[in-house]
Amino acid sequence: MTVHFHEEDLPAGVLADGPVAVDTETMGLVTPRDRLCVVQISDGQGDEHLVRFAKGSNYDAPNLKAVLADPARVKIYHFARFDLAAIEHYLGVVAAPVFCTKIASKMTRTYTDRHGLKNLTEELLGESMSKQQQSSDWGAPTLNDAQREYAASDVRYLHRLREILIERLKREDRLELAEACYEFLPARARLDIAGWADKDIFSHE
Amino acid sequence: MTVHFHEEDLPAGVLADGPVAVDTETMGLVTPRDRLCVVQISDGQGDEHLVRFAKGSNYDAPNLKAVLADPARVKIYHFARFDLAAIEHYLGVVAAPVFCTKIASKMTRTYTDRHGLKNLTEELLGESMSKQQQSSDWGAPTLNDAQREYAASDVRYLHRLREILIERLKREDRLELAEACYEFLPARARLDIAGWADKDIFSHE
Ligand SMILES: Nc1ncnc2c1ncn2[C@@H]1O[C@H](COP(=O)(O)O)[C@@H](OP(=O)(O)O)[C@H]1O
Ligand SMILES: Nc1ncnc2c1ncn2[C@@H]1O[C@H](COP(=O)(O)O)[C@@H](OP(=O)(O)O)[C@H]1O
Repeated sequence: MTVHFHEEDLPAGVLADGPVAVDTETMGLVTPRDRLCVVQISDGQGDEHLVRFAKGSNYDAPNLKAVLADPARVKIYHFARFDLAAIEHYLGVVAAPVFCTKIASKMTRTYTDRHGLKNLTEELLGESMSKQQQSSDWGAPTLNDAQREYAASDVRYLHRLREILIERLKREDRLELAEACYEFLPARARLDIAGWADKDIFSHE
Repeated sequence: MTVHFHEEDLPAGVLADGPVAVDTETMGLVTPRDRLCVVQISDGQGDEHLVRFAKGSNYDAPNLKAVLADPARVKIYHFARFDLAAIEHYLGVVAAPVFCTKIASKMTRTYTDRHGLKNLTEELLGESMSKQQQSSDWGAPTLNDAQREYAASDVRYLHRLREILIERLKREDRLELAEACYEFLPARARLDIAGWADKDIFSHE
């Protein structure tokens, strides 16, 4: 289990085929304002890759973009909506097809309202995660060890969570409904970028 | 321009080909509790058809269901989410493909937060609608003239609104985004029936 650090792009050929776990770190929650600083990606075999973008980056990352845009690779996220928006806005690709562990959690763990990644990994995997670096300066010239470890841990458990959540979705007859949500997520992210971030477009009001 | 009243099903062959405007009247806003009382439907040629379901109805309405389920007919609604849920729950069909004038309004009339059907018909068509019968007893043994007129008026303007809203969506480059929302609407309605009516499944919380 190694955390690999890269600047401005993923090296070619470092990922096994199949679904990849993806997360992003940004300067904040307002996508068009808060630049994309790090993309984390893992093929679920034990290693995590961090791709760092410097201030002023042109986000010209052909290897990373090819993986993200690959229609044959499912991208596993926790709260995909946010990452899809950052990736589309800064990297210019729609990083689908999607599996979102937060939506799967909402649709199966109806006995709780705690759908944070930390809650999920604790309950479903018995692993504890530190969220201390969540609000940190991801735009700093160098990322410290705690930040790197935090960023890597955000993609470390997603493959295993997905397996369990797929079983739960099947058990509760909600896999199809979850998949309909996943299909809409790229459009939901585009609405966020376009200015509807604070609106539920489906609400009556 | 005639309002046609039918009990328990639409007669065969009364609608021209093409998109149909659809609305429903129910006993209230909680779909599994509040039974479907009336389905209104119009082909946009000037007539409106009201299909009335009595208390205890088995909702065995083959002609109406065939029109609603026809994948070649766009169904035009105002706030499709609610009607799709009532139709799926009581009639057992997914009444898609969808055009929703409320979503189109939200995505184009960004200069206002008034996206009610009355607001739309006034601004875009210069027609005024009475909303007096909106909260009335749609389960009564007979519907009075004011109710019939109200129910019919709810589908009367939808074809014309759709034409104008499609032009606006194109002008603002948002037609594709609106269509992504329309595709998700049947799943959004299924979530409502399944118990997520008060939740935005895409929210962080
Ligand atoms: N409105 C919001 N509130 C909190 N977190 C949000 C958010 N919008 C997006 N996020 C992102 O969602 C992730 C947190 O999800 P959760 O709380 O469910 O574990 C965070 O990602 P990171 O952990 O990568 O920073 C955070 O950046
Ligand atoms: N939460 C809600 N509040 C108000 N109206 C709602 C609603 N959920 C569904 N509706 C339906 O949405 C329609 C009103 O839309 P609008 O206010 O945009 O004109 C009404 O249909 P009817 O007019 O057929 O009764 C109403 O029944």
